[in-house]
Amino acid sequence: MGKRGVLIVVSGFSGSGKGTLMRELLNRYDNYALSISATTRGPRPGEEEGREYFFKTTEEFEKMIAKDELIEYARYVDNYYGTPRVYVEEQLAAGMDVILEIEIQGALKVKEKFPDTLLLFVTPPTAGELRRRLVGRGTETMDVIEYRMGRAREEAEGMDRYDYLIINDDLEECVEEMHKIIQGEHRRSFRNQAFIEHMKEELKGE
Amino acid sequence: MGKRGVLIVVSGFSGSGKGTLMRELLNRYDNYALSISATTRGPRPGEEEGREYFFKTTEEFEKMIAKDELIEYARYVDNYYGTPRVYVEEQLAAGMDVILEIEIQGALKVKEKFPDTLLLFVTPPTAGELRRRLVGRGTETMDVIEYRMGRAREEAEGMDRYDYLIINDDLEECVEEMHKIIQGEHRRSFRNQAFIEHMKEELKGE
Repeated sequence: MGKRGVLIVVSGFSGSGKGTLMRELLNRYDNYALSISATTRGPRPGEEEGREYFFKTTEEFEKMIAKDELIEYARYVDNYYGTPRVYVEEQLAAGMDVILEIEIQGALKVKEKFPDTLLLFVTPPTAGELRRRLVGRGTETMDVIEYRMGRAREEAEGMDRYDYLIINDDLEECVEEMHKIIQGEHRRSFRNQAFIEHMKEELKGE
Repeated sequence: MGKRGVLIVVSGFSGSGKGTLMRELLNRYDNYALSISATTRGPRPGEEEGREYFFKTTEEFEKMIAKDELIEYARYVDNYYGTPRVYVEEQLAAGMDVILEIEIQGALKVKEKFPDTLLLFVTPPTAGELRRRLVGRGTETMDVIEYRMGRAREEAEGMDRYDYLIINDDLEECVEEMHKIIQGEHRRSFRNQAFIEHMKEELKGE
C-alpha cells in the first residue's frame, strides 16, 4: 500500500463541460481530490475561503512565490492565480489522485516541474457543438461567445501537448471514460518502479 | 469512422497466466484480433495451419524475410518464428486492436518500427506466486521450473521498457483492467491527430 496518487491537470475549452464532468467525477469516486487555487482577486458573492479559492493579499501571494510555495502561478489582468504546493503534495502522498483545473500555460509548467503529471484535455465532439453549448447557456452576450470561440481557436493549438483527449459527447459515458483512463495510468511502468525493483530483487531470491 | 486499431504487444513471465488472460479477452470483446505467427518448426499434435501457426518451410520463411513481409522475426534453436505483416495491417486498418504475443526482443523491435505500439507486460503479483504457479501446474520437472525462473530473472530486466504492467492477481479483474487500459489508449492525443487537425480547421470556420 501507500501508493502515491497521480497528479492530473484538466484543461479544456470554455463550453466543453469540464466543470460538470469534474463535479461528477468527484461525486462518484472517493480517490480524487480537487486542488484549490490561491488568488488575489476578491471573493464573489457565494464564494467561500478554502472552497472556491484561498483568498490572499498581493503581499501574501508574492511571499508564497518567493518561498516556492506554489506549483505554478500566473497573472491575469491585475490578479494572481496559483496552485499551493502543500495541499497537492499531502494528497498525493496519501494516495489521492489530485486534479488541477488550469489552462495550457499552467499545465505545461506543471508537466515540466513534475514530468509524471497526466494532462487531460476536454473537448466537445465538434466545433459546432462547442458554439451550440455556449449559445445554449443563454447567459452570455454574443461578444463573450465570440471571445470564447477565439480563445478556443488559440487553445486548440496546444491540444496535442496533452496526454489524452476527453471527448465530452455524453456526460455519463465521459465521466466513466475519464475515470478509466486515470485508473489505467496507475499501471504505467514508470509509475511502478518500486514494484519492478522489488520483483527483480525477489526473483533473485527465488 | 474507420478509426485505426491499436497494435499491442503482450509479453510476460512464463507462469504469469498471460495465455488464459488473452483467451478471456478475445472471448469477451470483439474488438481484438490475435496475430498468428509464422514458423518453420513442424506442427505438434493438435496444431492446425492458420490457427496456432502458419507453418512454412525454411525457404518460404527466408523469402518472407527478403520481401519484408514480417514485422519481426527471430530464430530459436533451429527454427524461425515471425509475425506476418499483411494480417496485422489489414486488421488495424479495419479498426481492430491487434495483439502480438511475443518476447521482449521482438517487442522492442516492433516498437522501434511502429512507435505507436502499446507494450504490455503481464506479471503475477510476486515472485513467490510465480514459482507457486509453475510448480502448481504439476506438469513440469524441477529442471524446467528452474529454467523458467531463470528466464524470469532475465526478462524482469526489461519490464520497465513496457508501457504498462498488467498485474495478474485475480483473472477476472485482470481481464477487465487490461481491456480498460487498451480502450483508454484510444484516447491518447497522438492517436487522434486527425481529430485534432479537424477540430482546428472547424474552429477557424466557426
